[in-house]
Amino acid sequence: MASPIGPELERLIQLLARLPGLGPRSARRAALHLIKKREALLEPLADATRVVSERVVVCSACGSVDTRDPCTICCDPKRDPSILIVVEDVSDLWALERAGVLNARYHVLGGVLSPLDGVGPDDLNLGRLVERAATGVSEVVIALNATVDGQTTAHYITDLLQHLPVKITRLAHGVPVGGELDYLDEGTLVAAMRQRTAL
Amino acid sequence: MASPIGPELERLIQLLARLPGLGPRSARRAALHLIKKREALLEPLADATRVVSERVVVCSACGSVDTRDPCTICCDPKRDPSILIVVEDVSDLWALERAGVLNARYHVLGGVLSPLDGVGPDDLNLGRLVERAATGVSEVVIALNATVDGQTTAHYITDLLQHLPVKITRLAHGVPVGGELDYLDEGTLVAAMRQRTAL
Repeated sequence: MASPIGPELERLIQLLARLPGLGPRSARRAALHLIKKREALLEPLADATRVVSERVVVCSACGSVDTRDPCTICCDPKRDPSILIVVEDVSDLWALERAGVLNARYHVLGGVLSPLDGVGPDDLNLGRLVERAATGVSEVVIALNATVDGQTTAHYITDLLQHLPVKITRLAHGVPVGGELDYLDEGTLVAAMRQRTAL
Repeated sequence: MASPIGPELERLIQLLARLPGLGPRSARRAALHLIKKREALLEPLADATRVVSERVVVCSACGSVDTRDPCTICCDPKRDPSILIVVEDVSDLWALERAGVLNARYHVLGGVLSPLDGVGPDDLNLGRLVERAATGVSEVVIALNATVDGQTTAHYITDLLQHLPVKITRLAHGVPVGGELDYLDEGTLVAAMRQRTAL
């Protein structure tokens, strides 16, 4: 039986289905939703995807994505230029920014060392990190995931920056805010107890 | 703290978050995914949304959506023109087409009667249904959801077409293929037993 929908619509559904979080079924729903809200959603989305696809660039300083290079954060004069926060991916940068955690600049590695996946030091944005850390930076905060690969990469970076006069720190381990002790693993509890703070 | 991402990217994320199945978090993931696959995904999606937003139309015959009017199905000479399948929404039409269930034409109501939600007969594509059923159609299959509103609408349509020489049928109730009796409601079991068929 021939496809009940034209090739243009079919193509839109196929592309939507490749977004993370959407599958074939939800892509069809999304496509119908877009068509029903043509002026409020479909046309703006067509414009927004076009604009982003034409203008988005990787920041040559920090490796983040933005529509300008250097990116908004690297250009922001209110940011403390002496602190550099090292993250694995742009999504981690966005997460820290949402938390409004530290008014500093970032360095996006674009991954973590992972011998099993064939990711070595040359695949990461490390050379630029050493350059940046050597010029006017007093602290490098390593904000990588608390996974084996993340921690391996943290140690690698520590060695890499050893010769520079910078303080190297990492995010604290401990009980998540709102978390219940009963549900936490032993490693987290040990770390939280070791680094207990005065009330 | 200023937004860490440019307004264009922010806008794309906001629009993606309005798709069914995506929320703010998954929209951010989707946007980053799009940017990382710019040539393979973002640019084609920009084109596809543009093309669909410019070309998609509601079929003046059946009420489906397509990039041509009358739509691909209404124009298909291989379809049996004497059978009309009445569905609530385009998504139901697509579902029946995927099942390759009956090589006939469709009529999309655009909803079902729902007094509580203020949906009356004038809000549905019913006038055109009567016109179509009166010209060369011998059977109208009512393929609406087996909900209260769906069944109310089915009865309303039956009354509406009473004066025409057409056979009016509806989808069978019964045990879903692969379904287990233990998990089915009593209404379904009663219907399945009443309409039992010879082996």
